[in-house]
Amino acid sequence: MRPRKAGSSFVSLTFVLLLGAPAMADDSLRDLQIDNSIIPAELANNAILLRERVLLDNLPVDIVESITTEVGPRRVGTEGDKRAIAWAQAKFEELGFDRVWAEEFTVDRGWIRGDAKAEIVSPYPQNLVLTALGYSVGTNGDLVGEVAEFATFDDLLAVPAGDSLKGKIAFVSFSMADYVPSPGESELGGYGQGTRARGRGHVEAAKRGAEAIVIRSVGIDNNRNGHTGGGYGYEDGVRKIPAAALSAPDAILLQNMLSRGGPVTMKLNMTSEITGPVVGANVIGEITGRDGSDEYLVLGAHLDSWDDGTGAIDDGAGVGSMMATAALIGQMDQRPRRSIRVILFGAEEIGLVGVQAYAKAHREELNDHLLGAEVDGGGGRINTLTSGVGDASVAVVREMYKLIAPLGIEWSDANDATGDSDMSVLGRAGMPALGFNQNSNDYFMYHHTSNDTFDKIIPEDMRYLTAAYATIFYVAAELDIDFRK
Amino acid sequence: MRPRKAGSSFVSLTFVLLLGAPAMADDSLRDLQIDNSIIPAELANNAILLRERVLLDNLPVDIVESITTEVGPRRVGTEGDKRAIAWAQAKFEELGFDRVWAEEFTVDRGWIRGDAKAEIVSPYPQNLVLTALGYSVGTNGDLVGEVAEFATFDDLLAVPAGDSLKGKIAFVSFSMADYVPSPGESELGGYGQGTRARGRGHVEAAKRGAEAIVIRSVGIDNNRNGHTGGGYGYEDGVRKIPAAALSAPDAILLQNMLSRGGPVTMKLNMTSEITGPVVGANVIGEITGRDGSDEYLVLGAHLDSWDDGTGAIDDGAGVGSMMATAALIGQMDQRPRRSIRVILFGAEEIGLVGVQAYAKAHREELNDHLLGAEVDGGGGRINTLTSGVGDASVAVVREMYKLIAPLGIEWSDANDATGDSDMSVLGRAGMPALGFNQNSNDYFMYHHTSNDTFDKIIPEDMRYLTAAYATIFYVAAELDIDFRK
Repeated sequence: MRPRKAGSSFVSLTFVLLLGAPAMADDSLRDLQIDNSIIPAELANNAILLRERVLLDNLPVDIVESITTEVGPRRVGTEGDKRAIAWAQAKFEELGFDRVWAEEFTVDRGWIRGDAKAEIVSPYPQNLVLTALGYSVGTNGDLVGEVAEFATFDDLLAVPAGDSLKGKIAFVSFSMADYVPSPGESELGGYGQGTRARGRGHVEAAKRGAEAIVIRSVGIDNNRNGHTGGGYGYEDGVRKIPAAALSAPDAILLQNMLSRGGPVTMKLNMTSEITGPVVGANVIGEITGRDGSDEYLVLGAHLDSWDDGTGAIDDGAGVGSMMATAALIGQMDQRPRRSIRVILFGAEEIGLVGVQAYAKAHREELNDHLLGAEVDGGGGRINTLTSGVGDASVAVVREMYKLIAPLGIEWSDANDATGDSDMSVLGRAGMPALGFNQNSNDYFMYHHTSNDTFDKIIPEDMRYLTAAYATIFYVAAELDIDFRK
Repeated sequence: MRPRKAGSSFVSLTFVLLLGAPAMADDSLRDLQIDNSIIPAELANNAILLRERVLLDNLPVDIVESITTEVGPRRVGTEGDKRAIAWAQAKFEELGFDRVWAEEFTVDRGWIRGDAKAEIVSPYPQNLVLTALGYSVGTNGDLVGEVAEFATFDDLLAVPAGDSLKGKIAFVSFSMADYVPSPGESELGGYGQGTRARGRGHVEAAKRGAEAIVIRSVGIDNNRNGHTGGGYGYEDGVRKIPAAALSAPDAILLQNMLSRGGPVTMKLNMTSEITGPVVGANVIGEITGRDGSDEYLVLGAHLDSWDDGTGAIDDGAGVGSMMATAALIGQMDQRPRRSIRVILFGAEEIGLVGVQAYAKAHREELNDHLLGAEVDGGGGRINTLTSGVGDASVAVVREMYKLIAPLGIEWSDANDATGDSDMSVLGRAGMPALGFNQNSNDYFMYHHTSNDTFDKIIPEDMRYLTAAYATIFYVAAELDIDFRK
């Protein structure tokens, strides 16, 4: 038995367990029809008690409050990121993790956001609100050009390469909010469509002679702040042109001006700057298992954030829920059989850079990663669980799932999970994974904007989210299962 | 009969009227139980046809689109306001008003907004988002001070005058969003409470030695943009200190830092500047009545706006609905018996300055203002009609009300309307008025922010709003009633 911090409210749960008279939730074990040859009754019972306990614990929310208040924006290479790396290690220690460390990596370039201003010069002088896309170059003073609108990225691609857009500022007005997915397409298909121009627009517009590109922000809100993101990656041999995202109201305003038929001239002034290499880090905390093996389960989130907001939903919510999941399992009566590692990846936002460094550094140990999952979709509840394991293990995950079904979670037998976000890199390399599909709520209203702040976190949803993970990972850590088989 | 513009869809209505076979709405005249000794049947019938026609007309929305796109922000004294004054006259002409003119006035000082930046210096360095309150002075470089939080304006007032707050930045964290009105208090009581600190905080904090004041924005949203407003009015003999409004997320962030108990130091940098006198104007358009008298009904809205947004809900919606009300009445078969004037007041936002100039210039003609009303609450539908007329006329307004009851509007017999916003100045001076109480919808989410943009307008609500006004003012313009009696 491990010492707990004085005053831990978990003492009461331990007390109940010692007395052998657990206070059951309203769904009894019998109702769940758990196959006790797969999950022993005592383990299932403990899992349900843990689930109910986590539902009452504000720890995941408190962690988001802590990182947003004490750290705030934390793009890789910034002072904020350095503070985040120190904060994460201190927080892991404070939460009683057994081992805590950081693994540094180098990113080949850094970026200074600077200011981004835009105004319509004619016919109707007005300021517009936009935000630089990540790793955009600046405008080197005022850049003035006539606006050439393209309803979609494909429409831009349809313009001949060369100097078709010479002197122009390309404007891709595609709206994620107004996109209607095709039958069978993901309901977030509009995000995928929108990120095409966000990720490649600056290259394709430059190939056609444009001086700069602005896109309508990829989001579903009507707030007057731009959604940053993407943008990393100019192409050798193609002129580097500035790239920025107009807020939805400003994209609409610009379209309204253009709809009158005459030329619209825009002035851009962006002081963004690409710099030399910067250092980032993945920060890892471990609840060390009692079996003494070198194998571990992994819970992922990313520590870095875009820099207009304080990184609450992206990905403070992941940091909070994953730290809390392992910490609350670690507060149980004894350490789980297997170790649980929480990996807070660095530099996710600029292209999964931290996890790639991690995968390289740990390439000999991929087999030690028994099962992985990541939260990078905000603080919403889980709606569906899917496995991504060996065929023989699907039935085990299915039994584990029954323990969280009362949280309003569905089961999908697709068995195609590879881990989300950073974890997908390890999942695609063979690591067994679980797919916890989240309600996206209003995620794409605030994603990559100044509006990504703590007040957007819905505490009860965060508790439901964390309860689902804690229940599943507690059982997975106790069972002696090779999820690859 | 007056000529109409070619292509007007009103031709069909005229045609129907000439045939004497009006297509009635599903509420027949009989159902409304109109007293035809007060409102003759033919007039009531025409009013209902007008109401139904206006419900289908996008003109009020188109006008808001026009002013937000072609003019945008238009604070008095700015280039935007000058453009707005020209726009309004051109729009009145385009809409077929018979007389159009502007009445200039001078405001004793102008204001340059400049930039407003804030950051926490310690313990947790982060940028905060805020906006200068109107007519605030700047900080003259960086202003650094420890934050002293006051939960309410009264808590600030409770601090002794002198140097209690020397070296401090006062922070009034009162939240309109969280305010619970007392029994009997207006549901917008939180706005009234919030505007106390907005209007006087810079004076009262200075009297207590503070270096600056920041307030939580007066609004109900969680968007990361400040709500400007108020602020005009330093007091002689009291030091002029800068005043700004933090966005709600930033006020919460600051409170979270302060809740840890240690000192929090903030740096402000504001380049706002008060300037010499500026010129504004009220712009007036008249549909001239056929009776040839010098008397008129007045519809008000304000032409100026705060300068972070494009002034769509405040008060583009008023401009659009009032211009459209008179214009659509003017498109009827013949001019109304009495003239209808639309007055677009200047400099409302900085303290009803334009209407005061108007009242002074027209003080001899107050009796010519037969009845007035104003829209300055966004584009929401009317929910209640109240009169503010002589006792003998209440029954007339009550009969007029029946014509708009089918729009989901209630009647209040309080008879206490004095006209909203600018019009209240004339109403309190004795002008008969009508009170069209509006649904405030999400008005205080966007009010006085960068988010006050065209996309916030709900077209169907604007059509309902305009239909209510058009119906009532059409009938009022046809009747030979002295609303003072």
